Amino acid sequence: MAVIKVHGTVFSTATMRVSACLFEKQLEFEIVPIDIRGGEHKKEPFLSLNPFGQVPAFEDQDLKLFESRAITQHIAHAYADKGTELICGDFKKMAIIGAWVEAESHQYDPPATKLTQELVVKPAFGIPKDPAVVEENEPKLIKILDIYEKRLAQSKYIGGDSFTLVDLHHLPTIHYLMGTEAGKLFKSRPNVNAWVADITARPAWSKVLALQKRQ
Amino acid sequence: MAVIKVHGTVFSTATMRVSACLFEKQLEFEIVPIDIRGGEHKKEPFLSLNPFGQVPAFEDQDLKLFESRAITQHIAHAYADKGTELICGDFKKMAIIGAWVEAESHQYDPPATKLTQELVVKPAFGIPKDPAVVEENEPKLIKILDIYEKRLAQSKYIGGDSFTLVDLHHLPTIHYLMGTEAGKLFKSRPNVNAWVADITARPAWSKVLALQKRQ
Ligand SMILES: N[C@@H](CCC(=O)N[C@@H](CS)C(=O)NCC(=O)O)C(=O)O
Ligand SMILES: N[C@@H](CCC(=O)N[C@@H](CS)C(=O)NCC(=O)O)C(=O)O
Repeated sequence: MAVIKVHGTVFSTATMRVSACLFEKQLEFEIVPIDIRGGEHKKEPFLSLNPFGQVPAFEDQDLKLFESRAITQHIAHAYADKGTELICGDFKKMAIIGAWVEAESHQYDPPATKLTQELVVKPAFGIPKDPAVVEENEPKLIKILDIYEKRLAQSKYIGGDSFTLVDLHHLPTIHYLMGTEAGKLFKSRPNVNAWVADITARPAWSKVLALQKRQ
Repeated sequence: MAVIKVHGTVFSTATMRVSACLFEKQLEFEIVPIDIRGGEHKKEPFLSLNPFGQVPAFEDQDLKLFESRAITQHIAHAYADKGTELICGDFKKMAIIGAWVEAESHQYDPPATKLTQELVVKPAFGIPKDPAVVEENEPKLIKILDIYEKRLAQSKYIGGDSFTLVDLHHLPTIHYLMGTEAGKLFKSRPNVNAWVADITARPAWSKVLALQKRQ
C-alpha cells in the first residue's frame, strides 16, 4: 500500500501536475479516484482534505495538503534526494526559479486555464465554447508566450539551465492546449516550441498520460 | 544608500505586499517610484527588471526579482534570522503554510483583486464600477471567507499559530476592501474580523500605510 495518496482524477490538470512531480521524484503513490461529476469533491470526507472543494488533495502519511503547486513544492523539498532535482540549493538561483514559478501562477495560468476550459473541457462535455472568452484570453496568452520566447533564448528552461518545478507546472495545460487551435501559439515560437517538445518528451510525463489510457 | 530597492508605487497592492515584508524583517530599503500613469512600467529600463511590465520589481544587490509573492519568499528565506520569522523551519508546518499561501494566490486573490479594482481603483480614477463584476466576485469572496472563518476557529492565523507570509500576503487587498461595501464580508465573520484587526494592527503594516501619507 502506497503511503502517498493523491485524491483526484487523472484527467484534471491540477492532479496531473502533482502526478508528474511524483513520477519525476520516482516515488510510489496511489491515485484515489474522486467522482467529480457526482460532486464527491464538494462533500465530506473530501472537504476535510481540501476545504476549497477542488482536486487534487494529497496525503503523505499524516500530512494532508491541497493546492497542486503547494504539493509539488512539498514533494520537491521533502524528497530532495530522490529522482530529478526540481529545485536548486543555491539561494539566488532558487529565488529566480521562484519568480518564474509565481509568473506561471499569476501570468501564464489564468489565460491558459480559461482556454483549456473553453477548448478542451467544454467540448468534452458537449458544451459549446464561448468565443468571447477565447478572444479575450488568446491575446493574454500570446503576451506571455512572447516573454517566454525571449526568456528561452537566454536559458534552456524557464527557471534556468535545468528542468525545475516551473517547467513542470506548465505541463498539463500545455498538453491539452497543444491539441487545440491554441497549439499554434506555442508551435509558431521556435524557442517555446523546442521547450514544449523537450518537456513533454520526459519519461515522467509519459507516465502521467499513461494513467489516462488505463481509464 | 539602501542595497534593497523596490521599484513600484506605494499605492499598489503588490508593492505594499513587498514593503510589508521588508518592514517585518526590519530591513532597510528604498522605494524607486515608477510612473504607472505615464506607462514607465511598460518600457525599458523597467522591462529588464520585470518582463511582465507590472510593479513591483525588486533588486537586492545583483539579484533582480519580480512577482510580489516570489519576492516575499526570497526575503523570508534569505533574511530568516532578521525581524519577524515569516516561515517555519519544521517541514510539515511549512508545507501547511505553503498550502494556504497557494490558496491565497489561487482562491482568495482573484476575487479580492477584482473587487479592489472595481470598488477602489476605478472610483479613484473617476471610472464607474461595473456592477456585474462586483456581483460575480462577491459570492466568490464569501465562499473563501467562510472557509477562512472555520480555519481561524482552529488556529489564530491562517497558516498556524503564528503570523506568517500567508497572512501578510492578504494585507493589501484587505486594507483596501475594508473601506468599501465589501468590508462587511470581513466584519460580519467574527474570526475573520478578529484576524483582520490583529494583522492590520502590526507596526510593520502601519509603516506601509505611512509611506502613502508622505506622497
Ligand atoms: N489552484 C488549484 C486548482 C484546482 C482545480 O481547479 N481543480 C479542478 C480540476 S483541474 C477542480 O477541482 N474542478 C472542479 C471544481 O472546481 O468544482 C490547484 O492547483 O490545485
Ligand atoms: N502578480 C503580480 C501582480 C502585479 C500587479 O498586478 N501590479 C499592478 C499594480 S498592483 C500593476 O503593475 N498594474 C499595472 C499594469 O498591470 O499595467 C505580483 O504579485 O507582483
